[in-house]
Amino acid sequence: MLFLARMDVAFPESMDAETRADFQAREKEYSSDLQRRGIMKGIWRVVGEYANHSIYEVDSNDQLHEVFAGFPMFPYMKVQVTPLAKHPNATTDDFFG
Amino acid sequence: MLFLARMDVAFPESMDAETRADFQAREKEYSSDLQRRGIMKGIWRVVGEYANHSIYEVDSNDQLHEVFAGFPMFPYMKVQVTPLAKHPNATTDDFFG
Amino acid sequence: MLFLARMDVAFPESMDAETRADFQAREKEYSSDLQRRGIMKGIWRVVGEYANHSIYEVDSNDQLHEVFAGFPMFPYMKVQVTPLAKHPNATTDDFFG
Amino acid sequence: MLFLARMDVAFPESMDAETRADFQAREKEYSSDLQRRGIMKGIWRVVGEYANHSIYEVDSNDQLHEVFAGFPMFPYMKVQVTPLAKHPNATTDDFFG
Amino acid sequence: MLFLARMDVAFPESMDAETRADFQAREKEYSSDLQRRGIMKGIWRVVGEYANHSIYEVDSNDQLHEVFAGFPMFPYMKVQVTPLAKHPNATTDDFFG
Amino acid sequence: MLFLARMDVAFPESMDAETRADFQAREKEYSSDLQRRGIMKGIWRVVGEYANHSIYEVDSNDQLHEVFAGFPMFPYMKVQVTPLAKHPNATTDDFFG
Amino acid sequence: MLFLARMDVAFPESMDAETRADFQAREKEYSSDLQRRGIMKGIWRVVGEYANHSIYEVDSNDQLHEVFAGFPMFPYMKVQVTPLAKHPNATTDDFFG
Amino acid sequence: MLFLARMDVAFPESMDAETRADFQAREKEYSSDLQRRGIMKGIWRVVGEYANHSIYEVDSNDQLHEVFAGFPMFPYMKVQVTPLAKHPNATTDDFFG
Amino acid sequence: MLFLARMDVAFPESMDAETRADFQAREKEYSSDLQRRGIMKGIWRVVGEYANHSIYEVDSNDQLHEVFAGFPMFPYMKVQVTPLAKHPNATTDDFFG
Amino acid sequence: MLFLARMDVAFPESMDAETRADFQAREKEYSSDLQRRGIMKGIWRVVGEYANHSIYEVDSNDQLHEVFAGFPMFPYMKVQVTPLAKHPNATTDDFFG
Repeated sequence: MLFLARMDVAFPESMDAETRADFQAREKEYSSDLQRRGIMKGIWRVVGEYANHSIYEVDSNDQLHEVFAGFPMFPYMKVQVTPLAKHPNATTDDFFG
Repeated sequence: MLFLARMDVAFPESMDAETRADFQAREKEYSSDLQRRGIMKGIWRVVGEYANHSIYEVDSNDQLHEVFAGFPMFPYMKVQVTPLAKHPNATTDDFFG
Repeated sequence: MLFLARMDVAFPESMDAETRADFQAREKEYSSDLQRRGIMKGIWRVVGEYANHSIYEVDSNDQLHEVFAGFPMFPYMKVQVTPLAKHPNATTDDFFG
Repeated sequence: MLFLARMDVAFPESMDAETRADFQAREKEYSSDLQRRGIMKGIWRVVGEYANHSIYEVDSNDQLHEVFAGFPMFPYMKVQVTPLAKHPNATTDDFFG
Repeated sequence: MLFLARMDVAFPESMDAETRADFQAREKEYSSDLQRRGIMKGIWRVVGEYANHSIYEVDSNDQLHEVFAGFPMFPYMKVQVTPLAKHPNATTDDFFG
Repeated sequence: MLFLARMDVAFPESMDAETRADFQAREKEYSSDLQRRGIMKGIWRVVGEYANHSIYEVDSNDQLHEVFAGFPMFPYMKVQVTPLAKHPNATTDDFFG
Repeated sequence: MLFLARMDVAFPESMDAETRADFQAREKEYSSDLQRRGIMKGIWRVVGEYANHSIYEVDSNDQLHEVFAGFPMFPYMKVQVTPLAKHPNATTDDFFG
Repeated sequence: MLFLARMDVAFPESMDAETRADFQAREKEYSSDLQRRGIMKGIWRVVGEYANHSIYEVDSNDQLHEVFAGFPMFPYMKVQVTPLAKHPNATTDDFFG
Repeated sequence: MLFLARMDVAFPESMDAETRADFQAREKEYSSDLQRRGIMKGIWRVVGEYANHSIYEVDSNDQLHEVFAGFPMFPYMKVQVTPLAKHPNATTDDFFG
Repeated sequence: MLFLARMDVAFPESMDAETRADFQAREKEYSSDLQRRGIMKGIWRVVGEYANHSIYEVDSNDQLHEVFAGFPMFPYMKVQVTPLAKHPNATTDDFFG
């Protein structure tokens, strides 16, 4: 079951560069792990913004919320979620092969 | 080069069922062709709406507009386009492999 | 897995009273059936509007879209969907017991 | 008489972890109490957000405002309220049985 | 229990002047009756718009929806409802004395 | 001449409880005075929000702005103003009698 | 007492050119009369739009609504009204001399 | 050539009363000068808001931006600009005579 | 003096293909003429939409409105206009050379 | 391949004048360099706002994001990007000659 997310990140002004870098390093690791486990099917930068579009495959809404809440940068994210279903014009059940 | 689109379809009230079905059949064919040619990398139904999210790989903005304008149902579509770039946390160059 | 929906209905001006009544009768039947099968957990009128808030329990996004698309009045509905997860302050797993 | 609420929580950046945890503990207790008393009929996490949808049964608008104002985290909440009425397609007077 | 409403009216272009006048006459009668019964506490024209702000005193959300649905022009109205509670700075329980 | 206002209050995070209480006490006094003088015809809490709807009777826009600017909490308020006129369906010239 | 208005005009598609021209002629006459009587202090075209900004001097909200409702094209207008007061930095009480 | 502006002012919370008063004094002087030079044709307070509507006569967009950028409070202003043209129903070329 | 415009075109459903083609042909001619005369400095398709962004060099707002009003498809256009000024980081006075 | 951008800059209140001036100097240098290299085809000030509209010619979305991310003031910018394609009414392939 797939969900499209758009995540916008806004760090507080007071955060120093080191803390920020540490967040980004842990975020990268968490994100890599989600990709390895087949949960994050894709992630792309929105051009010009500190934001991404990403697609998730999960078994339930509860699992999806846990995935989001687990992002190290979750407290600084605005997440918008769109549930996706199979489209009648799709030629495959799995575009991520 | 990838672009995310959201397409909302609104047929005019006056369109009869047959015309509508014909549009949908030609749309499906056009959409299948784009998938075969590797231009449409994925398409999903937005749950509860006559809308899709789809991802396109093209060489230029001109090509992308031609792809959209070629949809049989283009005159009845509202298309929103988001340019996507490689994300630093992506573990692959091509999620659709 | 629960989803909250808000559905706004707008019939075209040209629809006659009989057709409208027929739609409403079939809608009621479809809605009753969803309640009997435990898919529609609740439905309420939004005060002052031709709209409802309703809650659905389904196994997947695909099933949820089928449920929406099956409403007789679906072509005249605007549906907004919010995926719901378990809240840490909930004292029960199932409020609809 | 039922009302649907959406509550979005935003703690100030300056709040330390302990204060936050204390707020959350008191919030949980307050919320549990409302559920025990049959005032909060349900509460669910909005997936991906520090927000909930919840449903309240009260006798009056005054009581409802007191319920909201009593939340320990009320000063940090944005609350949107929708009055709900019986829907003609409902098969029961009480979905929360 | 008080509710503030804003009602915007939009008649379809095809409606002839006589039908419109008939709607307005019946609306006036219905509105007068609500005022006589103490349900509609006040109604004012929004300057420059075919809209009103009005205040209702009812016992329940169900009653309020019935009041709105009973307006002859209800099918052509957009109604926005705001539940009102007693304000701590109010010097009286009933401003409409 | 009547105006409807919606006022939303947002105190800065840094304001201490005593200062806040002092503002609220002076606000209450100012508000009471406006009611005694027949300028503020009514004030109600918007359920779930630190906001009110209130109605003012004044002779001019200049007077109305002075009334708003005189609120002790004016610097922390967002005020939206709607000019009201007599409604053709009103059965009285003065609902606040 | 001054009010700023923005008026957007949208004629229905079905209106023929002659009717439209007749509306515009009567509108011009009505507008000229308002200017002669010192009620409409100014009117300007919003560049690129079938819209104007105009400023009115009236004694009351009731008079202002009558002024708007008297425009021949009122049924096809969307009017937004902003009450204006004297600005502390104004060097004159009357800019329209 | 005329432009309508709406300016909303928001001082930072940290600004002390003296600095604020100094800004306001210099703003008043700058504003008076613009009026004397026939650049600012009018300025009015938006009732209930720390905002104004003002009208400017300038020879070019470059001059207009310089006028705005010259306001002492410019860094704390949100400015929205609407280009105005002669309206066909205007009975004069210059309402500010 | 430059202005950026965004123009969205929406033909009425009832317009036949021939009329539409005629409009488009006359639009192209008008647009070419504006380019030849150095008034329209550039025009680009917004990808995926029946819309353009275009830039105009004119002497006054009046001239700009005449340019817009002269488009054959003006009655079917929504035009949004942004006045542009010289940017301090521009390395040339004229990018269109 | 062209893209239109709108960039809004908002420096944090705490930034001192020197730091700000330093940012602006480096921004100017970076911007000049982009113009020299033919990547930034034009840049204009939005009248009345700390914002610009600018047009970019790049080979890919990845390059475009690098261009934006390279702006010294990028962390303080909100960037909105619109992909542009050739317009059928354009009389040239390159308006920036």
